[in-house]
Amino acid sequence: MTHADMMDSAGPAELGATLSGLRVLELGHFVAAPFCTRLLGDLGADVIKVEPLQGDPVRQWGAQVDGRSLWWSIHGRNKRSIALDLKKPDARDIILALVAQCDVVVENFRPGQLARMSLGPDALRAVRPDLIIAHISGYGQTGPYRDRAAFGVIGEAIGGLRYLTNHAPGQNDLPPVRVGVSIGDSIAGLYAAFGIMAALWQRDREGGDAAARSLDVALTESVFSMMEAMLPEYGKLGIIKQPTGGGIATAAPSNAYPTKDGSWVLIAANSEPLFAKLAVLIGRPQMIDDPDYVGNAARVRNAARLDAIIGEWTGRHVSSELLLLLNGADIPNSKVYTAHDCATDPQYLDRGMVREIDDTAFGTVLHSGIVPHVPQSPGTIRWPGPDIGTHTDEVLMELAAMKHAEIAALREQGIIR
Amino acid sequence: MTHADMMDSAGPAELGATLSGLRVLELGHFVAAPFCTRLLGDLGADVIKVEPLQGDPVRQWGAQVDGRSLWWSIHGRNKRSIALDLKKPDARDIILALVAQCDVVVENFRPGQLARMSLGPDALRAVRPDLIIAHISGYGQTGPYRDRAAFGVIGEAIGGLRYLTNHAPGQNDLPPVRVGVSIGDSIAGLYAAFGIMAALWQRDREGGDAAARSLDVALTESVFSMMEAMLPEYGKLGIIKQPTGGGIATAAPSNAYPTKDGSWVLIAANSEPLFAKLAVLIGRPQMIDDPDYVGNAARVRNAARLDAIIGEWTGRHVSSELLLLLNGADIPNSKVYTAHDCATDPQYLDRGMVREIDDTAFGTVLHSGIVPHVPQSPGTIRWPGPDIGTHTDEVLMELAAMKHAEIAALREQGIIR
Repeated sequence: MTHADMMDSAGPAELGATLSGLRVLELGHFVAAPFCTRLLGDLGADVIKVEPLQGDPVRQWGAQVDGRSLWWSIHGRNKRSIALDLKKPDARDIILALVAQCDVVVENFRPGQLARMSLGPDALRAVRPDLIIAHISGYGQTGPYRDRAAFGVIGEAIGGLRYLTNHAPGQNDLPPVRVGVSIGDSIAGLYAAFGIMAALWQRDREGGDAAARSLDVALTESVFSMMEAMLPEYGKLGIIKQPTGGGIATAAPSNAYPTKDGSWVLIAANSEPLFAKLAVLIGRPQMIDDPDYVGNAARVRNAARLDAIIGEWTGRHVSSELLLLLNGADIPNSKVYTAHDCATDPQYLDRGMVREIDDTAFGTVLHSGIVPHVPQSPGTIRWPGPDIGTHTDEVLMELAAMKHAEIAALREQGIIR
Repeated sequence: MTHADMMDSAGPAELGATLSGLRVLELGHFVAAPFCTRLLGDLGADVIKVEPLQGDPVRQWGAQVDGRSLWWSIHGRNKRSIALDLKKPDARDIILALVAQCDVVVENFRPGQLARMSLGPDALRAVRPDLIIAHISGYGQTGPYRDRAAFGVIGEAIGGLRYLTNHAPGQNDLPPVRVGVSIGDSIAGLYAAFGIMAALWQRDREGGDAAARSLDVALTESVFSMMEAMLPEYGKLGIIKQPTGGGIATAAPSNAYPTKDGSWVLIAANSEPLFAKLAVLIGRPQMIDDPDYVGNAARVRNAARLDAIIGEWTGRHVSSELLLLLNGADIPNSKVYTAHDCATDPQYLDRGMVREIDDTAFGTVLHSGIVPHVPQSPGTIRWPGPDIGTHTDEVLMELAAMKHAEIAALREQGIIR
């Protein structure tokens, strides 16, 4: 049997884009809604991003070159940008003309904000009765907290994640750490993408109900839904799940250990055979029969001591040596990857997860690839994040049947860009 | 305008389940594949989980009551369990009979493992030509690392997440922390659920291509796809994104601060008006005009000093006082929620995100609710995680047209449970 038979991922793509035929209007900004539409666009949907005249703030977030953020190159990729001033009544009419041609609207204004601009669900469905609408917000569209400001870090804290990204109580007095990216926003955007496709499937399939549905996705709840046994263990046993630093509360040794060259290596040797291999490798074979370390339960009890011993050994080697030694002994391990490690990883390169993309603003830019990978019709990066309003004219002519003169007049009045 | 008009989430549900009519076979274990099918089941799909005779290992993970894990009550909810010994040839025939009645198979064996059991994609599509197959693995179905063991923590490390869940270099010598849950597995499962629905929409819609697609979802790549600007900033400017502890590299003050009663409060006061309000609130109005703190750039430069000053103030108050003071001053803030805080949160309770579910094994169990929320047809928790093989007879009679006697014979031979 060849790998091609076994893998279900080899061979040339033979199908069109997974989401060809789908048109999505994004009334979004910052991270969550634009991340959702990026996922849809990566799989081939026609995403039209509506921006204010000054553009989405993410265009200025993070490191920049000539005033353009590199993040935008990924965040805005595969989208058409149309820029207009939503405070102008004419802009509202344009939005409604576009919505009539769209399957989906994705928005992450504060709950009720679109309705206050006369673009609430009823107004949108008046022009497109079977419209799927994805609302993304901090706390959801209903409930006592619905009007509170939504920040990613607050969503993560209320979702229960932030409390856990810390060392065990008493280990130090530094605060629990942020995950380093706006993971709550991205998870919420991914949930919205899932919900949109679920609603579309039921709407559009043969035998389906042809119904318009909405998605009401909250950052807090998106994070909370990933908390595994935290809630039932609290409810039944009163357990308040605690942070465990680099380790796992129920398995040892499993942690990140320092290396001589200032990085970290993960080692997961929390079974009897793996622990025996590790004990030999670090020159402490007597630990195999030491009652303090026989069995996972004993090792968990003495995890701090065990981690210190292992860390003393790892600290004597640079990471490249450690990986050779641990792989040679068949002990699960990994370097803790930095941006450099990700960019040069052979597996990522082989699978197109690190790609060079031409961006007129920057020359060549590295983009992460497309997830999920669909072997029969891989998603494509057709263009990087466009300038503000790059597609305004094109979209208005194509979808709102406007003429050059009308568009010029709107631009003159400061309604579009 | 009433809230009902504005919110698009009020009013009674009027539609059937979003995923009614969808049948999914899970050949999964541990976290990623079962999390994917939980999401599908929560929205109404008929999920049939194939388990080994001894059950999915998660049935024994985490805190238990009478040998049953509380996690399972959530992880297995809404699924039908059929238990069989995949090493037996007759079991393979049963799988194929079930696949013929399913739209989707979700699996997270090692790449190639199902093919070695004669259940590879070709075998499955021989009985169901338009089958959608979702493969979830550590590194993906192709590439030089495809055969490596998949661990959640390793996927998170290679995805670039673990490096960032740490304090800034030089702050302490403790290792970067784990997120506290298997977030890489859950994100991969969510990506698979999105990809499944995308493939089904194109397969089943009017005007679609009626084609079978596969999803090749890797834990590593699922995490990596959420790393925002990390990769393009490295590629263009050589920036290696660094951890920033509880704060954000580009905004101050924004951090988690200690409280007198041993918890943490997040405060995000990183704009001029918010910072001014905070300075007054903590009794340091002179900071407003102090050149060390005027403007975000200056505050970022002096963030450590600023955080110490704010932390000294928060440490004098218990968290309930702090929330009153900060809300009173209209400064974005949140307690860092523990399991207790989540379980008792008014917003979660109002939106059905914390629910009491009857579980014959435990009595009442708390479950997290259903994400995404679909106001017109909210997902339902129809039953908690079932016992091993609860639905074996039912499924074999309904979908494989078996009779009682046949089923009894298979059970006698140890093929099913």
